[in-house]
Amino acid sequence: MASRFGLRIELVSKDRPEIQSDDLEQIAVSSARSCAPRLGKGFFVEDAGLFVNALRGFPGPYSSYAYSTIGYEGVLDLLREKEDRSAFFLSVICHYDGRYRTFTGKVEGRISPSARGSSGFGFDPIFIPDGETHTFAEMGPRKNEISHRARSAEIFFRTLINGR
Amino acid sequence: MASRFGLRIELVSKDRPEIQSDDLEQIAVSSARSCAPRLGKGFFVEDAGLFVNALRGFPGPYSSYAYSTIGYEGVLDLLREKEDRSAFFLSVICHYDGRYRTFTGKVEGRISPSARGSSGFGFDPIFIPDGETHTFAEMGPRKNEISHRARSAEIFFRTLINGR
Repeated sequence: MASRFGLRIELVSKDRPEIQSDDLEQIAVSSARSCAPRLGKGFFVEDAGLFVNALRGFPGPYSSYAYSTIGYEGVLDLLREKEDRSAFFLSVICHYDGRYRTFTGKVEGRISPSARGSSGFGFDPIFIPDGETHTFAEMGPRKNEISHRARSAEIFFRTLINGR
Repeated sequence: MASRFGLRIELVSKDRPEIQSDDLEQIAVSSARSCAPRLGKGFFVEDAGLFVNALRGFPGPYSSYAYSTIGYEGVLDLLREKEDRSAFFLSVICHYDGRYRTFTGKVEGRISPSARGSSGFGFDPIFIPDGETHTFAEMGPRKNEISHRARSAEIFFRTLINGR
């Protein structure tokens, strides 16, 4: 997507501490702060999570850990007797150019009764965005056009090219 | 317990960032490091978690977050169809006196079929230590004599009074 905006992005792999917080924006800003001394100006970090309303936002900021331990089967187990299956994916980008700014993308949806599809990663097989019948994992590349991450990235890139 | 060792402890409430990690010791050391500039020498931090083997250690370092979102009911739900109900509580103390040292206490046990008892806190109502028939939450003050935290504290205090 960056190239569509005439932007060139370089991926930098850095071990960086992520703080524990139920606020994804706070985590992203803290991560960016810890990278700034090494990376200087002109970088961004991104963090994302799946927030399930009936589970008070779980797994939220700990989606990656939850996925690697209980998996999406775990989330399905936790919702087995819940009527409310609404959920949302959140992506927060924090950009540093001398100041820290965040850009948020959100996709509302619901947790499917069972896992479907094999594209994407993480909780994609159990998340159906509002207005869709397919899970993220059944969408193939189309997911990348409508995802939470697409939304945060689009706002971020538009801001950059507009020089704001 | 500290007074039994002739030690006086002062509780300091500080907001401190906790990093995300599946290693409790790493979290405790990192927390201590972030407190050292403000507190100087002679303090310790403690972190604890419940690790369920059939859930690959979940909720582990994120026990507090898991408790406040899915609760112990969530852990029972996740184990509904698992045969292996073994689990352990871990407590890690990190003490700073110019260098960082950690002291670990562990209690092996199992997740009870249902919640029992009302003393203690967190996941105490669903954890039965090995060799016991009662959950931590059914033990009242006796829990404080045999808990993971009692064990880490005892090793720590003994080291302190022996001047090591």
